[in-house]
Amino acid sequence: MGSVICVGLGPGDPDLMSVRSWRLIQSARQVAHFRKAGRPGQARRIVEGMLAEGVVEHPMEYPVTTELDFASDEYDAMLSQFYDHWSARLLTLAADCDVIVLCEGDPFFYGSFMHLYNRLRGRVNVQVVPGITGMSGCWTATGAPITWGDDVMTVLMGTLPEADLVTHMRAADALVVMKTGRNLAKIRAALAEVGRLEQAWIVEGGTMPGQTVGRLVDYGQQDCPYFSIVLVHGNGRRPGGME
Amino acid sequence: MGSVICVGLGPGDPDLMSVRSWRLIQSARQVAHFRKAGRPGQARRIVEGMLAEGVVEHPMEYPVTTELDFASDEYDAMLSQFYDHWSARLLTLAADCDVIVLCEGDPFFYGSFMHLYNRLRGRVNVQVVPGITGMSGCWTATGAPITWGDDVMTVLMGTLPEADLVTHMRAADALVVMKTGRNLAKIRAALAEVGRLEQAWIVEGGTMPGQTVGRLVDYGQQDCPYFSIVLVHGNGRRPGGME
Repeated sequence: MGSVICVGLGPGDPDLMSVRSWRLIQSARQVAHFRKAGRPGQARRIVEGMLAEGVVEHPMEYPVTTELDFASDEYDAMLSQFYDHWSARLLTLAADCDVIVLCEGDPFFYGSFMHLYNRLRGRVNVQVVPGITGMSGCWTATGAPITWGDDVMTVLMGTLPEADLVTHMRAADALVVMKTGRNLAKIRAALAEVGRLEQAWIVEGGTMPGQTVGRLVDYGQQDCPYFSIVLVHGNGRRPGGME
Repeated sequence: MGSVICVGLGPGDPDLMSVRSWRLIQSARQVAHFRKAGRPGQARRIVEGMLAEGVVEHPMEYPVTTELDFASDEYDAMLSQFYDHWSARLLTLAADCDVIVLCEGDPFFYGSFMHLYNRLRGRVNVQVVPGITGMSGCWTATGAPITWGDDVMTVLMGTLPEADLVTHMRAADALVVMKTGRNLAKIRAALAEVGRLEQAWIVEGGTMPGQTVGRLVDYGQQDCPYFSIVLVHGNGRRPGGME
């Protein structure tokens, strides 16, 4: 009986995955990964050239991504069936040998694998290898520390209502906003309302070829890729004052 | 002229550093790392057995850690001088060849290196390699996802006043409290005030030998090691309800 091992791939640059993930991927005999139907998938792209000959690949295609409102019953039912199906399938596949599940970023930080994890735990040995989060890759790309001293850092999803974004943005020192995409106008409005739009950065494709880093006020598009991250750096206590 | 390259070491298990950090450390000719005076230092311990023969090591010993109030002028002056000294020293050392600076976790996330970084930028080529944060190592160790769906996650320092802890703990879904140590009683009190003490976990030495993971209510000590992390998992939207 094998295990189901979810490996964090980190923010996108293959060299930024952990040594443990690297080893597990290179020796894998079965690999599973999420992707949008008909697309190669970002997780699979990160491990390009790393897989052993003869590896069996299992793409897990989301039945829906942004075509339906994520709060609808239909979306919920479709995703739930999808995770039910793939947890059963991974259980069967693991009977032969370990299945390595590829997961961008850090699996337990807003990762899709957690829905399989909760269905599999107790039924098969499940392991998770942490990864560098996408946000770490993005703030490193800005060339400035995200948090200092006693800064409070809050991570927000762009899918939240604007009023909630405003409340949290007002309270925290450092901000990370994920799930941006079509929510960018709302995120901009919320940042403007709390007077922090001028300090905000947007990073697209952090640590990957084609990465772009810039001030949000200079960003010309109304929307952005869904995985772009908006950041506001903290500005806390530091020896020697403002350095 | 060489570069100053700060490599994130990740949460503690050497296999959890990135492939890029691993390579840079193994080929380093000069290595610098922070430590408390007279101690081997956690960063140095993580790379034990990895350094090449003949490497020159530069321990950077903090002039003070917890003996003085971090908000005092004296503490500020001592740390500021320390960072001034070491930034000048690294600049000199980098004239020969690259200097690899070891940094636990992710350097731009509450890391000491940022104080050197701000003094060195523009004077020498400075690079930062991100790492898996200590908190990622800790929530992975609890065997449960830290955030789901639209959860708001807030990272707090235990050094904050209790009233601030309470305000932020009330607002967020998922919580991470770092810099615990002698602040543990205050952290407990704040969690109890917002009704979240029962859900809190404490992880000591996350991903390292001797790691301990448990409920905070079952934790017998009044204080804990300074780098122990307190966590409260989020509980957001997920397909199929509570799974």
